[in-house]
Amino acid sequence: MSSFDPAIFSINSRFDSDHLTIGGVSAIDLAEQFGTPVFVVDEADFFTRATHWKRALEESFGPHAGTVYYAAKSFISKEVARWVNKIGIGLDVCTGGELEVARAVDFPAARIELHGNNKSEAEIRCGIEYGVGTIVIDSFVEIERVARIALELGMVQKVYIRVTPGVEAHTHEFISTAHEDVKFGFSLASGAAWQAIELIKKYPSLQLSGLHSHIGSQIFNSDGFAAAAKKLIQLLARYRDTFNTELPELDLGGGYGIAYIPGEVTLDPYIVMKELAGVITSECAAVKIAVPRISIEPGRAIVGPTTTTLYTVGTTKEVELDGGLRRRYVSVDGGMSENIRPALYGAEYLAIIANRNSSPEQVNSRVVGKHCESGDIIIREIELSRDLGPGDLLAIPATGAYGRSMASNYNHLPRPAVVAVIDGKARMIVRRESIADLLSLEL
Amino acid sequence: MSSFDPAIFSINSRFDSDHLTIGGVSAIDLAEQFGTPVFVVDEADFFTRATHWKRALEESFGPHAGTVYYAAKSFISKEVARWVNKIGIGLDVCTGGELEVARAVDFPAARIELHGNNKSEAEIRCGIEYGVGTIVIDSFVEIERVARIALELGMVQKVYIRVTPGVEAHTHEFISTAHEDVKFGFSLASGAAWQAIELIKKYPSLQLSGLHSHIGSQIFNSDGFAAAAKKLIQLLARYRDTFNTELPELDLGGGYGIAYIPGEVTLDPYIVMKELAGVITSECAAVKIAVPRISIEPGRAIVGPTTTTLYTVGTTKEVELDGGLRRRYVSVDGGMSENIRPALYGAEYLAIIANRNSSPEQVNSRVVGKHCESGDIIIREIELSRDLGPGDLLAIPATGAYGRSMASNYNHLPRPAVVAVIDGKARMIVRRESIADLLSLEL
Repeated sequence: MSSFDPAIFSINSRFDSDHLTIGGVSAIDLAEQFGTPVFVVDEADFFTRATHWKRALEESFGPHAGTVYYAAKSFISKEVARWVNKIGIGLDVCTGGELEVARAVDFPAARIELHGNNKSEAEIRCGIEYGVGTIVIDSFVEIERVARIALELGMVQKVYIRVTPGVEAHTHEFISTAHEDVKFGFSLASGAAWQAIELIKKYPSLQLSGLHSHIGSQIFNSDGFAAAAKKLIQLLARYRDTFNTELPELDLGGGYGIAYIPGEVTLDPYIVMKELAGVITSECAAVKIAVPRISIEPGRAIVGPTTTTLYTVGTTKEVELDGGLRRRYVSVDGGMSENIRPALYGAEYLAIIANRNSSPEQVNSRVVGKHCESGDIIIREIELSRDLGPGDLLAIPATGAYGRSMASNYNHLPRPAVVAVIDGKARMIVRRESIADLLSLEL
Repeated sequence: MSSFDPAIFSINSRFDSDHLTIGGVSAIDLAEQFGTPVFVVDEADFFTRATHWKRALEESFGPHAGTVYYAAKSFISKEVARWVNKIGIGLDVCTGGELEVARAVDFPAARIELHGNNKSEAEIRCGIEYGVGTIVIDSFVEIERVARIALELGMVQKVYIRVTPGVEAHTHEFISTAHEDVKFGFSLASGAAWQAIELIKKYPSLQLSGLHSHIGSQIFNSDGFAAAAKKLIQLLARYRDTFNTELPELDLGGGYGIAYIPGEVTLDPYIVMKELAGVITSECAAVKIAVPRISIEPGRAIVGPTTTTLYTVGTTKEVELDGGLRRRYVSVDGGMSENIRPALYGAEYLAIIANRNSSPEQVNSRVVGKHCESGDIIIREIELSRDLGPGDLLAIPATGAYGRSMASNYNHLPRPAVVAVIDGKARMIVRRESIADLLSLEL
């Protein structure tokens, strides 16, 4: 039976009497005031989760704690960038566009890390001019590019190199591979990572400060991170042996898993950081290097669970399946345009009726959108109350990451608003697109 | 070896001396003038293909030819809507947003067909007020809704019902199923389609004129369409038997396949229409009804092959694979944000170097985008010239359908411009997004 699950909804969500409230605001009021679909961000939850990651890093690594970089790709807007700044953590941006959001709110440049497998010259220039703390170098082509632009601008740019350590995380397990068939970074096994280090050292406009790795997404234990850290520490030791000095920083990327459906458990930052600290401390001791400053890049793990999408049900339809089974299609007023994850990754979600108590009798249901495409499915299979019908509100939790950020205008659907709720008050932080917006690019 | 293939590029594309031209405009000039990535539409090709579908329908069905409805979901803009109008075909819209594009260019309402499994009341009202020729009714809920709104507006609305005939097309084959597990339409087998007919007949504000079915996408022969038509004709016969009058129209939807990669062959409209006409004529004769007016809804089949995406290569990288194999990653300045089809459907594409002749020596390559995601792949495996490098232009043909229309701002990448080329001249029809556009929704 589909019901409110506090492990999946944002911290300040309740289903108290007969409807859902988020941050003290009724889902019914939110739908009336802002329309549906709408992304509702539990602002206090964002602060709570981000702060937990910061504290977990600081408590686990003490003086060796580096920076928690919020991964902008999961979801960024000017207001979210302000929050990130206020919390005092850093920002991981991958493109000039993400950097522009940071610039638009005067985000402290020193706390920005610039990523990307194919940064344009303009993006690199923009980053260096703005003064981004770190550029994560991803390819040999880019070493020369960053060095040249920094030189032109009269700057010495702090850089990491992105290393592919041969650790592939597959959600509940991880595998060690000699070669990683990915577009990112420099392979450790092939020697490319070491060559990159040697090359970077030759450019006076580059200051190599550390190594970076990112092993995957939706990871639910520390084993993969620990395995990657061990390999990177070997490389740090080789660096010390060769150059007689130590690289002071190590960034282990993101990928920390969150709960989407009942039974899943969001990774506890304190547990994973503590486990990692243990591994890193002992590995560094074994090769006799100082523990580097450790940075991480949670995105989904911060914003994902904070956000709930509210939809209005438009139509329902019963379909007979083979073997006498029946499925009820429940169509909502959005779909793959604002949540492509089910179609793209087979992602699973929970949904509950948000506007009232409902009949305990459940029906095998599929929640679909309004796009002209049979793959426009939000939840493939879920038990939902028999009395669910047009006009009801459906709430889908854990939609903060890779929802609005990957949203399209497929079928010319305007993209939904993002509304922040806190202490019983709601305000828009990204407004809903209008038809005028949709047509504004057309000639 | 990857090279120019006239079967896949648009009709007015050439690789004459040492670079690609489209509609008489050099790819190099297009990239310089409009930047990359850019969608380049061969305008004359659009007119040619649309006109071929119109003629094929008219020649095959003679006085029984209905309307070719261009499926807006594949790609629509104001200028494309003007083209569709000028060609004299109809427009299939699925949402209020698509309808607004039509309205913005005063598209003749009578030639508009309004689709959708979950039309909102506002969309239905807007459609009826504008005077759309046909509303395709998709569910029982919608029958009452359309009837009520038409009544309120004092109109009698012509409608089709969407029937799921139990024919599933799977690209190169089709299967017949008793039950279709889709969100669309009324099941023929369950009796829902007949119930819908009976219910619609009770509303004086609804004028039932025909049946509609849509069996899939990327279909390469007429068998599936013929199988669906046969089933629908049985329903038309039952209608005649019951009501002693005939439904005059039948819409067989879209799904006509196009070539994306060498070896594939775009479906010939004249062949498929002629085959369909043969089947429909004999089936109607068998049940002694007049051949209804036949309409179709090609979208991809018109716009898909007309458009080529131009990218600039930013970085290349060689990666070792297991077994001593190597793969070269070629990163371009776009990715899954303007072409999600490879990530979403495993779609395949061709790419060629557009700005010069290149070395005949080929390298096993993967074309990827610039998004921070390992699944950001445009072409999984392709042989591309060894000398391909940063600054080169890559041209990917057949990107007209479900490219720009499904584009997102993932990683805050601005969406590309769409440029129409004809007779040696290029002009923007959808401008590139700016950073200001990206930030315009944020508060």
